[in-house]
Amino acid sequence: MTDRQPKPVAVVLGSAAGGGFPQWNCGCRLCSLVRAGDPRVRAATQASVAVSGDGESWLLVGASPDLRQQLSQTPRLWPRTPGRDSPITGVLLTGGDVDAIAGLLVLRERQPFTIYAPAALLDVLADNHVFDVLDPALVRRVEVTPMQPMTCAGNLTLTLLPMPGKVPLYQEVRDATEPEAAPAYAALLHAGGRSVIVAPGCAEITDAVHTQLMQADVLFFDGTLFTDDEMIAAGLGAKTGRRMGHTPISGPNGTLTKLSDLPGRRIFLHINNTNPILLSDSPERRAVEAAGFEVAYDGMEIDL
Amino acid sequence: MTDRQPKPVAVVLGSAAGGGFPQWNCGCRLCSLVRAGDPRVRAATQASVAVSGDGESWLLVGASPDLRQQLSQTPRLWPRTPGRDSPITGVLLTGGDVDAIAGLLVLRERQPFTIYAPAALLDVLADNHVFDVLDPALVRRVEVTPMQPMTCAGNLTLTLLPMPGKVPLYQEVRDATEPEAAPAYAALLHAGGRSVIVAPGCAEITDAVHTQLMQADVLFFDGTLFTDDEMIAAGLGAKTGRRMGHTPISGPNGTLTKLSDLPGRRIFLHINNTNPILLSDSPERRAVEAAGFEVAYDGMEIDL
Repeated sequence: MTDRQPKPVAVVLGSAAGGGFPQWNCGCRLCSLVRAGDPRVRAATQASVAVSGDGESWLLVGASPDLRQQLSQTPRLWPRTPGRDSPITGVLLTGGDVDAIAGLLVLRERQPFTIYAPAALLDVLADNHVFDVLDPALVRRVEVTPMQPMTCAGNLTLTLLPMPGKVPLYQEVRDATEPEAAPAYAALLHAGGRSVIVAPGCAEITDAVHTQLMQADVLFFDGTLFTDDEMIAAGLGAKTGRRMGHTPISGPNGTLTKLSDLPGRRIFLHINNTNPILLSDSPERRAVEAAGFEVAYDGMEIDL
Repeated sequence: MTDRQPKPVAVVLGSAAGGGFPQWNCGCRLCSLVRAGDPRVRAATQASVAVSGDGESWLLVGASPDLRQQLSQTPRLWPRTPGRDSPITGVLLTGGDVDAIAGLLVLRERQPFTIYAPAALLDVLADNHVFDVLDPALVRRVEVTPMQPMTCAGNLTLTLLPMPGKVPLYQEVRDATEPEAAPAYAALLHAGGRSVIVAPGCAEITDAVHTQLMQADVLFFDGTLFTDDEMIAAGLGAKTGRRMGHTPISGPNGTLTKLSDLPGRRIFLHINNTNPILLSDSPERRAVEAAGFEVAYDGMEIDL
């Protein structure tokens, strides 16, 4: 029983890209600042957003490897009764990379809930028997057909939106110059006449993508890199953002330009440890905010 | 460069059993106390111990799903240089359960290290392609033959000791009354004339097990349950400790009795959220300490 009016809400459980912030093996300037406790940066876990149509029953969008830590830090998602209990009734998988699926392994312990995923991601779960730790008698696996609205956990209506993307890293042919293209997905969720889109990965903002994103009252969008060659310039990798399936924030085809005319709130999510928008007093952070975009942080709560 | 004399050391990265403390979907008394911030209980992540012969190069025993959080909290294991770096040079797998292997998925990001494991656990990695996220060009997989000492990462000599155990949960035949028996393993590590054994799972303290454990200057031992039927009594499960591959602390064949005559330090590790030794003023905690045993906690550091 609660006196609160049921209303749709989203909570950012994790705002960082794969590896988190700081990343375990990274001694870059930003990772070093966060380890030193510099107040201009916040530690961040790997991307996941919890959404609810009523604040009682919740859908997780993305199953981050940091899920146990994220749930410990989020009282709204704690058990409400003695014994086994959780307000989490569903988990939606939108991508197959480790930072988007490994959290399922945290959700063992004989708790019923439903996994929603497109066919290719259900295949990943079936092919990796370690996920059998989730008892099929308790944890249903439901295939979601892209572009077809369906009722789902959290008192929400879900539509899966295809985005340009690439295959997960562990499915790549090693040392290939270009990875195989494969759709990533964004989640469009409706409740109480409001809509939120969670799009942690998008390799290119095409006209079709732009049209889809126009629907959102609140958009969480791929904020992995500020500059396409950011990891190369920092000496931390050989891949551009687009090679990794992520469109950059800046540049002529970057997000600030391409999504300048969206009507709803626009919040960067899935932010890599190299991205200078993580530093509160950086010019890049000021540029993003001046353009009307927000930067997600762990624990950010949005009334939809 | 350091002025410190190189000396063997062990750090408890995580002290809890599978699920951690609190467990995400558990509203039991102890989990509720830790969420409420009661000073008599400490939050704990899932079991892993870092061991080093010299304090410079480290072996992780067990790859806990909480590894990213554990590394963030442990300055000794942070990168020492700008760019990509880690003092972790090896990971030893001693069991195949999710709480002992999922942390490997955290250790991606193009960092060279070596995985040491018995053949059956290397098979688990090979069968689950999600672990291919660790590039084989950088992350070697080395088979360890039980009872055969070998030099390993961390400037240590490793001997893998078989312990009575069961197959991992995801390999069980569902609803079988008894799981298939399979060896668990303990790690015996030598450095500088000192020895430590890490034994997070042991279904029965046989005479052979007892003889092995006598060798340790420091023993981290299975502290999952205080009483064999603890989870059943709490209404949280249908399995005894022995059914789960864990010998209880109390009782006629329990650890306090069976290991009363060991010469070295004896420290309980892999402690389940139902175990009353987690509560600092419980009679069970007093009984354990009166018998000369210690209770591990996250961040505990032991000079060997």
